[in-house]
Amino acid sequence: MSRSGSNGHLEVLDRTECVQFLAGQGVGRVAGTVEGRPVILPVNYAVVGDAVLVRARRGGDLDRITCDTVVAFEVDGSDSIYHEGWSVLVVGRSAHVTDPAELDALRSLRLLSWAGEGRDLFIRIVLDDVTGRRIHHLEP
Amino acid sequence: MSRSGSNGHLEVLDRTECVQFLAGQGVGRVAGTVEGRPVILPVNYAVVGDAVLVRARRGGDLDRITCDTVVAFEVDGSDSIYHEGWSVLVVGRSAHVTDPAELDALRSLRLLSWAGEGRDLFIRIVLDDVTGRRIHHLEP
Repeated sequence: MSRSGSNGHLEVLDRTECVQFLAGQGVGRVAGTVEGRPVILPVNYAVVGDAVLVRARRGGDLDRITCDTVVAFEVDGSDSIYHEGWSVLVVGRSAHVTDPAELDALRSLRLLSWAGEGRDLFIRIVLDDVTGRRIHHLEP
Repeated sequence: MSRSGSNGHLEVLDRTECVQFLAGQGVGRVAGTVEGRPVILPVNYAVVGDAVLVRARRGGDLDRITCDTVVAFEVDGSDSIYHEGWSVLVVGRSAHVTDPAELDALRSLRLLSWAGEGRDLFIRIVLDDVTGRRIHHLEP
């Protein structure tokens, strides 16, 4: 972890730390554009290998913003009492998972859609570019 | 609150409910594009009148993605045990606050930058389009 900034409060996380934070959470957000309108959509997810996996409803907004493009995926945590927090940003290629064997493996994952049934699409967001930072006010 | 979807789990929040959720939280995220790269940046914020106010460092990424444009701003909450959650999405015009009287009023707000000093820019994101939804599995 390297320190940056002039006040000593903002730290840059390295990739290993970022992936640890990603693996330790279950809810993140994907950004994109639907009909010219910027959107941020919350999703539950799992980290599988070098990618984040999410489920989506076919034809829904999440499907539309993640179909064969590059997206931003973000996870964060904060402590509102101490004004501390961290965040990890993934910028990576996203695409539907279509390989039957891989789909079978993913269906056995504990990755249920919180919004209910009908989300039978699996979307992979590759961990191409992973950056993170942490704000803290006391020495770790 | 109106019910939508086929499984009864996903509810659409009306604007009043969305603004109540916004006012009850303090950390959200702004999406945008920096040099062609999509980003999602976490921010602490305050709701003032019909807008969300955030602070930024002049010339930083948050400044760049919110300068005289339309942005997405999102707030959410989740219960990982019961797989419930809610989210509110604001899509609105964002701009620097430049009026001296308004800046004086904003400086008296309890809106400190968690990342330390030097964030002397106030950015307003107008609540133009406010939508939200909630996932629940038991009757409220």
